[in-house]
Amino acid sequence: MSSSNTSSTRWVHELLVVETSGKGFTNITAQVASVVARAQLRVGQCLVFVRHTSASLVIQENADPAVLRDLERWMSELAPEQRVWEHDDEGPDDMPAHARSALTRSSETIPILEGRLALGTWQGIYLWEHRSSRHRRELVVQICGAE
Amino acid sequence: MSSSNTSSTRWVHELLVVETSGKGFTNITAQVASVVARAQLRVGQCLVFVRHTSASLVIQENADPAVLRDLERWMSELAPEQRVWEHDDEGPDDMPAHARSALTRSSETIPILEGRLALGTWQGIYLWEHRSSRHRRELVVQICGAE
Amino acid sequence: MSSSNTSSTRWVHELLVVETSGKGFTNITAQVASVVARAQLRVGQCLVFVRHTSASLVIQENADPAVLRDLERWMSELAPEQRVWEHDDEGPDDMPAHARSALTRSSETIPILEGRLALGTWQGIYLWEHRSSRHRRELVVQICGAE
Repeated sequence: MSSSNTSSTRWVHELLVVETSGKGFTNITAQVASVVARAQLRVGQCLVFVRHTSASLVIQENADPAVLRDLERWMSELAPEQRVWEHDDEGPDDMPAHARSALTRSSETIPILEGRLALGTWQGIYLWEHRSSRHRRELVVQICGAE
Repeated sequence: MSSSNTSSTRWVHELLVVETSGKGFTNITAQVASVVARAQLRVGQCLVFVRHTSASLVIQENADPAVLRDLERWMSELAPEQRVWEHDDEGPDDMPAHARSALTRSSETIPILEGRLALGTWQGIYLWEHRSSRHRRELVVQICGAE
Repeated sequence: MSSSNTSSTRWVHELLVVETSGKGFTNITAQVASVVARAQLRVGQCLVFVRHTSASLVIQENADPAVLRDLERWMSELAPEQRVWEHDDEGPDDMPAHARSALTRSSETIPILEGRLALGTWQGIYLWEHRSSRHRRELVVQICGAE
């Protein structure tokens, strides 16, 4: 067990804006890691929070892009546009987008150890756009920790 | 990037009890926001944790109630009562309730900025009851942050 | 509302290695609780983070093992090996494992109150292995809090 006492906790946050181009994944790992690097904290936690209910977050494999294509196709089957949805004013992709968000995450928290995100080798942080058209998505990256 | 050093971290928690009336959603955003307001912290994080495995949390659209009705119906299809479940002593809705909980969240973490929950305009925090009958659900709202 | 000021925040972390024996659940509650006990903090939060994208975390019922068998069978139907997946180099269980991870959690955060995990009576923390063969899984247990 590694333990550290500290008399000073630092809170850092940054608003991240991601322009998406319809359904699919945007790898935001480098952007999040850059906020962590600038925060210059030795230990802490990094919270990524998406301020929408039709786009969400997942931590997924960062190696083979076919993984992301499979996830997108399979999720389209779990929450199909062809199903009859009561809430359909904004188009057939709107309610499936809420359903897909309910199954995935509004936030992810990643430990910071030795000044870096303690992700596994194959893990990337992804914003998952669930609407068909382009969207401007706002995320909060918030870090707390100690020097 | 906004950064703040502080020599004092404050921890605040409150037990929230929600009486549900069978399957469906209870909007707990105002109750959580009220704990945050009373905590009087400028920056921090708010953790909402549900102490059950047959009710769960989601952050979802707070505008059109049809979204919640669609989510409830669609989730009933993903984890149907009609399926044969081995664990069925407590009724046909029990095991689907565990399955629905596994797909959604035991906790949600929301950043606090400028003394308020940094939710998007259309985001609400919901307790999702997955059992058919009334239940008394316990949630922990825990805040840590700095003045 | 219970509130406590503190001038000292402590950060503690420990790497947990779990040897799995193919698809199914490992109850890690006792191991996580043991890290919390050794940390000797009165209030705080415990983050459990899994450093993989084909194994994940859920908080589920700790009483009847049939619940876990039902979850495993039902999840195998939601993300079936028989479906045609583009990413199939590592075997038919690989892509379903990523899909199952996307639906469950990379991390769980549990509040610490009075020095203990504030889990409900029936809640256990589980590592869910989604691959068919044995795997060595790394988790980070990270605690921050006050004495």
